[in-house]
Amino acid sequence: MSASFPRFRDRVLIAFVTQAFEAVGMPRDDAASVADLMVSADLGGAEGHGIFRLPQYIRRIRTGGINLHPRIRVERERAAMALIDGDNGMGHLVLKSAAEHAIAKARVTGVAWVGVHHSNHAGPASLYARMPMAHDMIGLYLAVGNANHLPPWGGIDLLLSTNPIAVGIPALEEPPVVLDMASTVAAYGKVKTKAQRGESMPEGWMIDREGRPLTDPRRAAEGFLLPIGGYKGYGLALVFGLLAGTLNGAAMGRDTIDFNRDETTPTNTGQAIVAIDIAAFGEVEQFKRKVDEVIRTMRSSRRLPDVDRIWLPGEQSHGKRIAYSRDGIPLAPELVQKLDELADELGMDPLPRE
Amino acid sequence: MSASFPRFRDRVLIAFVTQAFEAVGMPRDDAASVADLMVSADLGGAEGHGIFRLPQYIRRIRTGGINLHPRIRVERERAAMALIDGDNGMGHLVLKSAAEHAIAKARVTGVAWVGVHHSNHAGPASLYARMPMAHDMIGLYLAVGNANHLPPWGGIDLLLSTNPIAVGIPALEEPPVVLDMASTVAAYGKVKTKAQRGESMPEGWMIDREGRPLTDPRRAAEGFLLPIGGYKGYGLALVFGLLAGTLNGAAMGRDTIDFNRDETTPTNTGQAIVAIDIAAFGEVEQFKRKVDEVIRTMRSSRRLPDVDRIWLPGEQSHGKRIAYSRDGIPLAPELVQKLDELADELGMDPLPRE
Repeated sequence: MSASFPRFRDRVLIAFVTQAFEAVGMPRDDAASVADLMVSADLGGAEGHGIFRLPQYIRRIRTGGINLHPRIRVERERAAMALIDGDNGMGHLVLKSAAEHAIAKARVTGVAWVGVHHSNHAGPASLYARMPMAHDMIGLYLAVGNANHLPPWGGIDLLLSTNPIAVGIPALEEPPVVLDMASTVAAYGKVKTKAQRGESMPEGWMIDREGRPLTDPRRAAEGFLLPIGGYKGYGLALVFGLLAGTLNGAAMGRDTIDFNRDETTPTNTGQAIVAIDIAAFGEVEQFKRKVDEVIRTMRSSRRLPDVDRIWLPGEQSHGKRIAYSRDGIPLAPELVQKLDELADELGMDPLPRE
Repeated sequence: MSASFPRFRDRVLIAFVTQAFEAVGMPRDDAASVADLMVSADLGGAEGHGIFRLPQYIRRIRTGGINLHPRIRVERERAAMALIDGDNGMGHLVLKSAAEHAIAKARVTGVAWVGVHHSNHAGPASLYARMPMAHDMIGLYLAVGNANHLPPWGGIDLLLSTNPIAVGIPALEEPPVVLDMASTVAAYGKVKTKAQRGESMPEGWMIDREGRPLTDPRRAAEGFLLPIGGYKGYGLALVFGLLAGTLNGAAMGRDTIDFNRDETTPTNTGQAIVAIDIAAFGEVEQFKRKVDEVIRTMRSSRRLPDVDRIWLPGEQSHGKRIAYSRDGIPLAPELVQKLDELADELGMDPLPRE
């Protein structure tokens, strides 16, 4: 389907996003940093968390819901941890700072954990779990989502978000293992996509308030997402929320601000990033070679009927990153139209067609 | 069902297990430490990981598969991490040492990650995630399981174990949140229990090599466990295995020794424990009070029809720990018989009936 979508070079999108943020008053360097991370999400195929979010971010900035001049600072620290106050800045900037601190600390202490509060939505979890990999480190990332779509197991009140985990583990010759997953069977973005396309959802994604399967995505507001493994996914969402939210003094559970409905109240989003220096545990190349070996072992497993290939976490995203860097990033026509409207509003040129 | 089981005081079981280990040559202090942890598993209701394992452990010790005089030592360390060589000792002893190191380091650096290799099966993951809680810390534990029951998603070769995660988060007035879960829908022990009881399994626990639901637990060897959330649970099992196994130079994937079938080859089991000092992030009592609040919010959610109560992770186990400490631990008659047979073999008195 996306084969017929118009494609845009990553640098073109980065320039567009940078200009849009500058147009609403974000300092140039910050705008460029956020744009770079947002388009990196699109490059990896996380299309629900990249440039797709630009109109929403711009709206939030215009209503005053984001601090454009945040003083992002270390509020507490010890040798292997820090708590960062994001001062209600763009989540991308807060997390970039958190990752830098985690990496610098882990270089010395072997492992470091940096939590943040007063942050905001920051795109896909994998963006930040990937950052330590460039330094021969493993990255681990936990976040509190920005809208509650999940009740506790057995409940019907939406008290939890689909709190995600991401882990990035570098390999030698193989693509890195990058797991990025919500604690629900389907992320809410997938429900929205089904609704947009007029398709129905498979059973197991959502149930209604009577516990019956809900398969019509237009009725999504009447039900809720199902956690993976039933009470297990509920447990993961809860625990990730306590670690990324409560421990950092950030919103969690009932305090979570639904950033789709409320565009002004500070979200006090909490996230956490862990950097693990591989060299502290052993020889780096030897570790990466073992990761290659594990990857190849998994890939060469015999398969179920009708399965063409076994994928590793992050492998499809890695393939997209290579292809989209070379051929451009496909954007849905509806999204391109929204971006054109946004450009018009901001007095910018529309996205240049090739 | 277990209401009619004979019950045994925890101290009686600890004495029995200690004596059994001593009878096969384990030093007294080590025997007492392992016994204490094993019975602690039973107290919390993890009956598949407590005294139930004693005959298997004893067999492994007698075949020389466990080192009774291990030199458990820190092989590498930095301020916030250590890699411990368990020297093929009992996993409980290796992990107890690892948790002590993690707690001592986290007290200084805020967070500490201790990995182990050349370890062995150590009982339920929750045992070790709980340890930091007594020091006002959060505990996080990852392990490579000791038998492969899971193929990569889409595959049919058993290349992964049901690698578990456990997280222990203390509360103030409420029981702590203690999540302890395998990355599969059902743990393999549950399949064994179903087989023993002559019951069939619900669809969704296992599939056969053609991808069809497998519900007869006696046919378990013809199929494999399903991961939670499909490819997500596969991703978790893989990533937990890389973190607890590969990073520590321990077995993972194809290297895993099936300790049910092979009772002599050292398993080179890998585990990891993380301690997070709550005081590094903020005021401890305030954090615990917030955890109480989150717990109460979840518990008081409106419920689906036919749901009597919403549970928090670890809450049922907490209730059992209180009840079993007071009333004794129920043991299945078949298990009591096996323990009596073991006592006879070892020249010990059988378990005393009340």
